[in-house]
Amino acid sequence: MTRTLRTQVAVIGAGPAGLLLSQLLAGAGIETVVIDRKDRAYIEGRIRAGVLEQGTVDALSEAGVGDRLRREGLVHDGFDLCFDGDRHRIDLRALTGKSVTVYGQTEVTKDLFQRRFAQAQQFFLGVSDTRPEGLKDARPRVHFTHEGRGITVEADFIAGCDGFHGPARQSIPPEVLRTFERVYPFGWLGIMVEKPPVSHELIYANHARGFALASMRSQTRSRYYLQCGVQENIADWPDERFWEELSLRLGPDTAASLQTGASFEKSIAPLRSFVAEPMRYGNLFLAGDAAHIVPPTGAKGLNLAVADVQLLSRALIAHYRDNNDHYIDTYSQTVLSRVWKVERFSWQLSTLMHQFPDNSPFEQRMQRAEFDYIAGSEAAARSIAENYVGLPLE
Amino acid sequence: MTRTLRTQVAVIGAGPAGLLLSQLLAGAGIETVVIDRKDRAYIEGRIRAGVLEQGTVDALSEAGVGDRLRREGLVHDGFDLCFDGDRHRIDLRALTGKSVTVYGQTEVTKDLFQRRFAQAQQFFLGVSDTRPEGLKDARPRVHFTHEGRGITVEADFIAGCDGFHGPARQSIPPEVLRTFERVYPFGWLGIMVEKPPVSHELIYANHARGFALASMRSQTRSRYYLQCGVQENIADWPDERFWEELSLRLGPDTAASLQTGASFEKSIAPLRSFVAEPMRYGNLFLAGDAAHIVPPTGAKGLNLAVADVQLLSRALIAHYRDNNDHYIDTYSQTVLSRVWKVERFSWQLSTLMHQFPDNSPFEQRMQRAEFDYIAGSEAAARSIAENYVGLPLE
Repeated sequence: MTRTLRTQVAVIGAGPAGLLLSQLLAGAGIETVVIDRKDRAYIEGRIRAGVLEQGTVDALSEAGVGDRLRREGLVHDGFDLCFDGDRHRIDLRALTGKSVTVYGQTEVTKDLFQRRFAQAQQFFLGVSDTRPEGLKDARPRVHFTHEGRGITVEADFIAGCDGFHGPARQSIPPEVLRTFERVYPFGWLGIMVEKPPVSHELIYANHARGFALASMRSQTRSRYYLQCGVQENIADWPDERFWEELSLRLGPDTAASLQTGASFEKSIAPLRSFVAEPMRYGNLFLAGDAAHIVPPTGAKGLNLAVADVQLLSRALIAHYRDNNDHYIDTYSQTVLSRVWKVERFSWQLSTLMHQFPDNSPFEQRMQRAEFDYIAGSEAAARSIAENYVGLPLE
Repeated sequence: MTRTLRTQVAVIGAGPAGLLLSQLLAGAGIETVVIDRKDRAYIEGRIRAGVLEQGTVDALSEAGVGDRLRREGLVHDGFDLCFDGDRHRIDLRALTGKSVTVYGQTEVTKDLFQRRFAQAQQFFLGVSDTRPEGLKDARPRVHFTHEGRGITVEADFIAGCDGFHGPARQSIPPEVLRTFERVYPFGWLGIMVEKPPVSHELIYANHARGFALASMRSQTRSRYYLQCGVQENIADWPDERFWEELSLRLGPDTAASLQTGASFEKSIAPLRSFVAEPMRYGNLFLAGDAAHIVPPTGAKGLNLAVADVQLLSRALIAHYRDNNDHYIDTYSQTVLSRVWKVERFSWQLSTLMHQFPDNSPFEQRMQRAEFDYIAGSEAAARSIAENYVGLPLE
């Protein structure tokens, strides 16, 4: 027998986008039901990005989940770009007056879960067969199975925060949906290790052998990445080989400070740029990875999702509190305008910092010329910096 | 019978690069012989670019050929970028404190010729079979035929200012020379017309039908360009068709002010990015188009040649006056560092403003996102502006 519930906003996806939306709406007295096909332990265990824009930190703080972030997050005032051993620091603070904060997406998710569960918000985790329906109706519905039982949530609105593979975007009729995609001819091989980072700031390196990134999650936990083939096998990358290759790509000066050790996480991820338009269809709204993917260079994925959710919560709050649908009607356009700019930056930084097997010698020199130009021009460095710390919300 | 002359610097090419070099060296008491396969009337009649960076204007003034330029040149404090009808002005003056000057390359060449001939400098025009020789010798030579007679110029140095198709670059052994090239999948169809320009500043437009540029040579003479196929035939472009197409691409608001008329020049030029390395081989130095080509978007070709010549004249003057070969030894590296940055800008602006038949929908959106980003970011606009007015000499 199917159980039917009513709520104001049905949120599909309990990742950081869905949880933050639920939290922001709860703060305005708007009721949500949050659905996810995974359970809390799985969601909290996923290792994702870890660099938060100032706007993201502010949004999380305003949502009441900024305490631990402010305590444990590492504030970075800059980062390094390297090209064949030449190194240039982008001084975020001097160029923009802003900084970024290193704090894992995993931790953001934990903070949000703790907060949402403390407020006894309604959750259905580990569900299956999630199916949005009646998106153009006044009362759209989400059907799913939870603990063997069919459940229907009737809502005023559905928020699709269910990631790239989720059902929300796929429930928009194909003749309405337009998608844009760029698949990069390489992946990122990432490891996590319980060792202090090689540098107190991030280092993005383009080396003839491929891209490398020296990142971190804390002062004792490092995150390193190597550009690799998309078809490569993790089994071919024992830690020893990873450290050797990383040392080559970071160069001898940096490698001399590298503290190696046994990795406790190792994975290969493809790189993709993807945008779906529109981000609203009837009473369904998309936010985060459900609507767009960026390559990880520049760490924009989570930040972009948080920006979407800020704009979506504003639209829904204006609807309920002020009976004002202006922000609902302009949501897709407003969000996409920013999304495309962030896609552009992620694409630009990815294009600049990786080795592309099909690049002509001329294109290789264009990469180098862009690095040299950035290193020598305050305007160019500021352009990189203002994107890195986060463009304005609109 | 072959006649042999001696000089200090043999300059191959009497275009603006060769003439300016000869003029700057003459100012320091260094003797040159200037050789060109064309005659003066032909060289002065060639229609080329017409936007001078402030550094180019300064260099020409310092060389004593700035009087008419200052009198007749049109100082522009900005230009417009358009994208599908949306228009954004790049305020050069506000963003960089500098401006550019509209003054035809043809006029620069005339001014230089007049000055050089007034000083009775040695010229051989209309020569054939030009052949540099002994580039690694202490006394390299240039052989050529002039008025049916074989002539050999013996010099301390040879300056190859003879353009993309000239013999200077080709005299560098192939195993030493490295070339980089990008050929664009379109050309520019340009016309000149004796009518006031449609706008008092330049308009670069990217329209779904292709790129268009509204430029000028004076307040009564306009220069317009359309992106076209590389294989197109001028005969298929009667003036009427040109004006119709231009009006569509500039958009109705701009087209309303367009003064059309009979064109007195019409040509199709391909677009190419090209760089040859090194720019010095033994006692041969390359400058201008002999070493590099930029697509015309942003009008960098002449400006880049003038910058090369400024650095080359400095090197030669230091050699003769101060017995200092530092600038000779670093010429290629110094010049190429700037060349690559200017190539990057010309490539970026060309890539942003044209329709590329093979662009994916994602790449099309990247173009649009870049335009939107430039229109909304002072740092991005300043980056465009500082390149447009000219990067520092080194």
